[in-house]
Amino acid sequence: MNIFERIESNVRSYSRSFPVVFTKAKMSKMYDENGNEYIDFFDGAGALNYGHNNDFIKSRIIEYIESDGISHALDMFTGAKGEFFTCFEEKILKPRGMNYKIMSSAPTGTNAVEAALKLARKNTGRNGVFAFTGSFHGMTIGSLSVSSGKSIRAGAGEPLYGTTFVPHPNTFPGDCIAYMENIITDEYSGVEKPAAIILETVQAEGGVVVMSDQFLRDLRAFCDRHDIIMIIDDIQVGCGRTGKFFSFERAGIIPDMVTLSKSISGYGLPMSLVLIKPELDIFKPAEHNGTFRGNQMAFVGAKAAIEYRELYKLEEKTEENAKIVSDFVKERILPLNDKLEHRGLGMIQGVDFRHAQGDKDIAGMVAHECFLNGLIIERAGPNDCVVKIMPALTIEKDELMKGLEIIEAAVKKYI
Amino acid sequence: MNIFERIESNVRSYSRSFPVVFTKAKMSKMYDENGNEYIDFFDGAGALNYGHNNDFIKSRIIEYIESDGISHALDMFTGAKGEFFTCFEEKILKPRGMNYKIMSSAPTGTNAVEAALKLARKNTGRNGVFAFTGSFHGMTIGSLSVSSGKSIRAGAGEPLYGTTFVPHPNTFPGDCIAYMENIITDEYSGVEKPAAIILETVQAEGGVVVMSDQFLRDLRAFCDRHDIIMIIDDIQVGCGRTGKFFSFERAGIIPDMVTLSKSISGYGLPMSLVLIKPELDIFKPAEHNGTFRGNQMAFVGAKAAIEYRELYKLEEKTEENAKIVSDFVKERILPLNDKLEHRGLGMIQGVDFRHAQGDKDIAGMVAHECFLNGLIIERAGPNDCVVKIMPALTIEKDELMKGLEIIEAAVKKYI
Amino acid sequence: MNIFERIESNVRSYSRSFPVVFTKAKMSKMYDENGNEYIDFFDGAGALNYGHNNDFIKSRIIEYIESDGISHALDMFTGAKGEFFTCFEEKILKPRGMNYKIMSSAPTGTNAVEAALKLARKNTGRNGVFAFTGSFHGMTIGSLSVSSGKSIRAGAGEPLYGTTFVPHPNTFPGDCIAYMENIITDEYSGVEKPAAIILETVQAEGGVVVMSDQFLRDLRAFCDRHDIIMIIDDIQVGCGRTGKFFSFERAGIIPDMVTLSKSISGYGLPMSLVLIKPELDIFKPAEHNGTFRGNQMAFVGAKAAIEYRELYKLEEKTEENAKIVSDFVKERILPLNDKLEHRGLGMIQGVDFRHAQGDKDIAGMVAHECFLNGLIIERAGPNDCVVKIMPALTIEKDELMKGLEIIEAAVKKYI
Amino acid sequence: MNIFERIESNVRSYSRSFPVVFTKAKMSKMYDENGNEYIDFFDGAGALNYGHNNDFIKSRIIEYIESDGISHALDMFTGAKGEFFTCFEEKILKPRGMNYKIMSSAPTGTNAVEAALKLARKNTGRNGVFAFTGSFHGMTIGSLSVSSGKSIRAGAGEPLYGTTFVPHPNTFPGDCIAYMENIITDEYSGVEKPAAIILETVQAEGGVVVMSDQFLRDLRAFCDRHDIIMIIDDIQVGCGRTGKFFSFERAGIIPDMVTLSKSISGYGLPMSLVLIKPELDIFKPAEHNGTFRGNQMAFVGAKAAIEYRELYKLEEKTEENAKIVSDFVKERILPLNDKLEHRGLGMIQGVDFRHAQGDKDIAGMVAHECFLNGLIIERAGPNDCVVKIMPALTIEKDELMKGLEIIEAAVKKYI
Repeated sequence: MNIFERIESNVRSYSRSFPVVFTKAKMSKMYDENGNEYIDFFDGAGALNYGHNNDFIKSRIIEYIESDGISHALDMFTGAKGEFFTCFEEKILKPRGMNYKIMSSAPTGTNAVEAALKLARKNTGRNGVFAFTGSFHGMTIGSLSVSSGKSIRAGAGEPLYGTTFVPHPNTFPGDCIAYMENIITDEYSGVEKPAAIILETVQAEGGVVVMSDQFLRDLRAFCDRHDIIMIIDDIQVGCGRTGKFFSFERAGIIPDMVTLSKSISGYGLPMSLVLIKPELDIFKPAEHNGTFRGNQMAFVGAKAAIEYRELYKLEEKTEENAKIVSDFVKERILPLNDKLEHRGLGMIQGVDFRHAQGDKDIAGMVAHECFLNGLIIERAGPNDCVVKIMPALTIEKDELMKGLEIIEAAVKKYI
Repeated sequence: MNIFERIESNVRSYSRSFPVVFTKAKMSKMYDENGNEYIDFFDGAGALNYGHNNDFIKSRIIEYIESDGISHALDMFTGAKGEFFTCFEEKILKPRGMNYKIMSSAPTGTNAVEAALKLARKNTGRNGVFAFTGSFHGMTIGSLSVSSGKSIRAGAGEPLYGTTFVPHPNTFPGDCIAYMENIITDEYSGVEKPAAIILETVQAEGGVVVMSDQFLRDLRAFCDRHDIIMIIDDIQVGCGRTGKFFSFERAGIIPDMVTLSKSISGYGLPMSLVLIKPELDIFKPAEHNGTFRGNQMAFVGAKAAIEYRELYKLEEKTEENAKIVSDFVKERILPLNDKLEHRGLGMIQGVDFRHAQGDKDIAGMVAHECFLNGLIIERAGPNDCVVKIMPALTIEKDELMKGLEIIEAAVKKYI
Repeated sequence: MNIFERIESNVRSYSRSFPVVFTKAKMSKMYDENGNEYIDFFDGAGALNYGHNNDFIKSRIIEYIESDGISHALDMFTGAKGEFFTCFEEKILKPRGMNYKIMSSAPTGTNAVEAALKLARKNTGRNGVFAFTGSFHGMTIGSLSVSSGKSIRAGAGEPLYGTTFVPHPNTFPGDCIAYMENIITDEYSGVEKPAAIILETVQAEGGVVVMSDQFLRDLRAFCDRHDIIMIIDDIQVGCGRTGKFFSFERAGIIPDMVTLSKSISGYGLPMSLVLIKPELDIFKPAEHNGTFRGNQMAFVGAKAAIEYRELYKLEEKTEENAKIVSDFVKERILPLNDKLEHRGLGMIQGVDFRHAQGDKDIAGMVAHECFLNGLIIERAGPNDCVVKIMPALTIEKDELMKGLEIIEAAVKKYI
Repeated sequence: MNIFERIESNVRSYSRSFPVVFTKAKMSKMYDENGNEYIDFFDGAGALNYGHNNDFIKSRIIEYIESDGISHALDMFTGAKGEFFTCFEEKILKPRGMNYKIMSSAPTGTNAVEAALKLARKNTGRNGVFAFTGSFHGMTIGSLSVSSGKSIRAGAGEPLYGTTFVPHPNTFPGDCIAYMENIITDEYSGVEKPAAIILETVQAEGGVVVMSDQFLRDLRAFCDRHDIIMIIDDIQVGCGRTGKFFSFERAGIIPDMVTLSKSISGYGLPMSLVLIKPELDIFKPAEHNGTFRGNQMAFVGAKAAIEYRELYKLEEKTEENAKIVSDFVKERILPLNDKLEHRGLGMIQGVDFRHAQGDKDIAGMVAHECFLNGLIIERAGPNDCVVKIMPALTIEKDELMKGLEIIEAAVKKYI
């Protein structure tokens, strides 16, 4: 570990929570250099929905590399990209009646968000954007400007302009849509009609906060009424995390743009997409770009992942697992303290210690205790007060139960 | 090709210059779906310095995947990252007397640039940045703000603030350092002392424009005199492109921060680094981050690439190949028109058609003719007037000569 | 009138509502070049609280000019300024237990607002400012950025950044202070703690909207809790407009800074002040300035006005007149249509046609009809839907009644 | 003086250089409360070109006030404004072949600059503005953004964006127009074509720096070639300061907009104008405004001043006086030290101590010594190194000589 302490930038963070050197992993298990085994409820921050080194996907990737398939091609046409696009069209878009153009963006989520924001501004000629309190959309300046965390915003070292943060409907003491409507229409509101509204249907970093189906529908109607582009950032909670492939399917809405990343490659490989309604796809060639926007292994993995998802009925499995988690939390964790809260949807669920912990950092102690007992789990939300349960969708029931029991024991110890 | 035309966003660009579907590649050869072969002078925009699917690196990556090595780990400690860090320290930093902390940033170059700019602002408490006319540093808003291309800047859809563009020394009618010195010291210049100066020692997208060794040294001294952070963006011309591993070694200077990406993984995999002088490494944990900042296959490739570089004496090979290109251009292309210009360093060289082509786009015709004759080559600079010769460093002499002759023939046809 | 149509910029506005050439005026009467008489309920947009050419003040100004008193002196010490300061201290500040430093700013209200905002930023090291929906604080870029009108903001021709518009308490469906408190304290709100909150206790341009005493007290406490500078812009409703000299006295609070202008000179002469709590007065010499910050005739007028105010018991007179207006509106205008609304405080009162006029511009027709019948009156608020009753404080009862009856007749005609 | 020290904001500045209480003044003489007499070479920072309390103008103003002429009328039509407009058209615009619309802006120079910048942005749809190093255009945020002084810019407390500072032709080591042309046309310059270029033909606060006639013509042609709006800020050096009424007449050019203030009222009263080419006058009513934009006494003074100017042949007198100053400086001051520099045009001239004073503040000592000997004089330029000779245009020859001799003696004492 000396090498890291000697030479790695102080910016490193997860290695502070999990100070061991990981070397191998398989599905929901991780192993450190001393052979210790860990159950993974962290899931690479949502990038490993299909588990670590999923054999179905792995074999396709190895086969591709062995065949000297193109590894890197910017936005040239390639066989691997073509096959992924065809599969995505057939198995994801068409069955859902969706008609999107696909932008394969530089392979990080933040880059996809930046592309979507640029395109929204270009389409509307407007400058401002609405984002919700609690939001997180990325760390490059464009995405950071629509992210709500004050600490990361301060890291910019310069004022971040152009975003109006609107209150999240779950905490606003009134009708959030009416409030926004008033901002849009009142000629003395001080705030121009925005180019776009960007949102996570379930705020992950914000502390596992779920927007209701009804609110999503109302928001869609609001955007339609006012000709505002609706961008759903499905980077963390898309790709089946909440059950359906897209997190917004539950509400029956079609956003104007969707950003995808994290689990889209199926193998933890850098990849991101922007889905764009055809009439909005007014980009000039290369108007947004990035060297690694053609990560071919990721395309290979992404196609395999979609096939795997169907073959192994991941949607049903996610539903079953989500019920296990939900029941466990309600029956065995919440009763430990009546100020604990439970929130979540599908396989992103959280236990909120905000009101239960007073001035202490019990959520932190719980997460640390879990680690000591072989469970990798992270926290989210204000002061990291929410313990976030987010295993791979492929997790086996015994692993899931074992992980939940480790949490239960940790909560018992500290609450 | 229908799938692309039907579903891919209009933002696609290289597929317009090279409208075939690539499927395989090996070292400096690419193949399309119909089996046609192309010599590659484009090099994945500089991300494939070691060639496509370099066997030495490829075997390491396959071995790693087969062993179920961790694929994705954010910034946790991993065996693959540790081995890369150790190798980078031993073989790159130490022999050059460099003492840098390493930040493994979200794996795109633009993200590394954003991280460096944030850290420069944090260290100095200043807001502004100096960049050079002709610069290109990336497409996310922070990086775009220091990029000089008006067309891509306009794509932001919002004003980009905070950067003062200073004239490039090669075209300024005076002493560029003195000019900047005056801006810094004149209390009526209107421009504050900046947090940082960011530069490419050879502007690639700007049209293959080489800063002199002396200017780099004078700039280093200027930054020292005024306590300004010097950031060298070595994303495109580092990793041996100009001969030495870093493009600034030729000037004997040590920047305060260096950004690396593109060829660093050795295999075209998304990866980027920020090298930071230890005293500037004042990041708080996760103050800048990104999901894919731990692309483990890229670490495996990066270590292999450094070893390959030594084993196959790439520095010497680059010098030899550079002379071949340079001699060819001077002896066989420049004589075709006395208004053609040649610029470059190591294996990034350019033929500038600016003054030779009048209102025509001869550079474009030449590049297209090259493609028709089996050579992949791109252009750069204002109005894309510079044909950019940038093969893999590993290219064989016969491939190199064949490619150059294709260019020669194309120039002859159109000039 | 030809000269105006030929040569005056299209930006002219009031001359469109009142298309005659005014030449003389006395107290609440104005006269055009043809000798027509008008009752003035417009009051020079609040700059003529003591009436036109008030003899008490006029004689002092003429005497000063005749004596060759300094007319213009920037911020040098002068006798006229010293006498005004002494009078302001003795008769305004001391009796109210106020301890303020006085900045004689460049003589427009907007300049005073700009000075206050700069000083708030300097004191706190923070950048952002909170302003209320409905606000108007001036037209130069700094003041415009805290003004809520979308149309005037659009006139800037560039994005206006840095202000968070918070909902006005009178229309917010919840506890406005709690909402702001949440923004300040929630680390995921996206909005930093501001340097200052700027407000009008009665929004004039916003449509005669009165903040309650309790809200003002709660806001004062909020600012204290969070170390936020409270700036009250008393430019239009200070100088006795609401009865007391300062509009905030009714709530028993002391703002950190106060801006005054419009009627402060007593004679419609350009003058503005910023009152600053001594501990916040950390300006460096000339850090904010302006050529005409020493308009000496205005100082002479301002001293005379304060004396006049006492001598003629303007506070009591304002109270009596306010009751006359209020009773008249309630008894004779509101009954004409049950969707008419009445708002106001002291001698700034409004009849709001918003809900009564549907798609028509009845407020506009009423104001125009008034003009045709010899009454000068303006409108305010969204779509100019509020007819604003704002005569000089010195208006005689018969003039007041006559004006009100003209309004009544006009409303009857169009409602 | 106690009242000032007790209650006036620390922002006060001139009272620090001239710590006496002024009470009376006549033409080029000022008097303090103790009856001491001072010759005035400061001229109210350029607002008193016709001298203090000029009797010709004074009588008109008193007459107007006595007649109960309207004192304040926003932008209503008034007799006083109409007469001024007619006079300005007949005696200023027509004889010079100028066709301008007149905007009577809120009565400070900075407000006129803000109006001009807004209108330039509106006309072009562009955001950026070019200003020159050394510039000063005002202290409100819009004007401050085009002002070059770092110290006053820092006072904003927020980043000032949108202006590109171009080098002043007098100090640039090359062709300044060519340099700007390159910025405009090079697609990799990083800087968009601006809406406008704003300039002072003689930078006053910048240290009495005179642009050549040829440069002004070249700049006019440059603006024409590129459809950039040329705004000349003639606030300090217009109104006859350099001889002709407008400072740019000497170059034979017509700017697209001109800002006037300071001496325009003839009596030191707050007033400002924007002159606008008719085709650019696309303001909507009230799109820029300000309460005091109809300062009627100032209109009365302004008309009188134009008449006075003709009657007393101020242009010829200015030429004669300028020669006296220029000869005196060259013959009696420059010889005192060969590193002293002299610059100026008409009745704004400066002695630059920059190279003569080393680390000392000799310019400051000289100005202070002058004050002790009965001469009011200010400084300008970097570190206030330029002693600025700027008496009223009406100054008598004996007063002028006496003042110059006081300067000479002071320089002798300290150089």
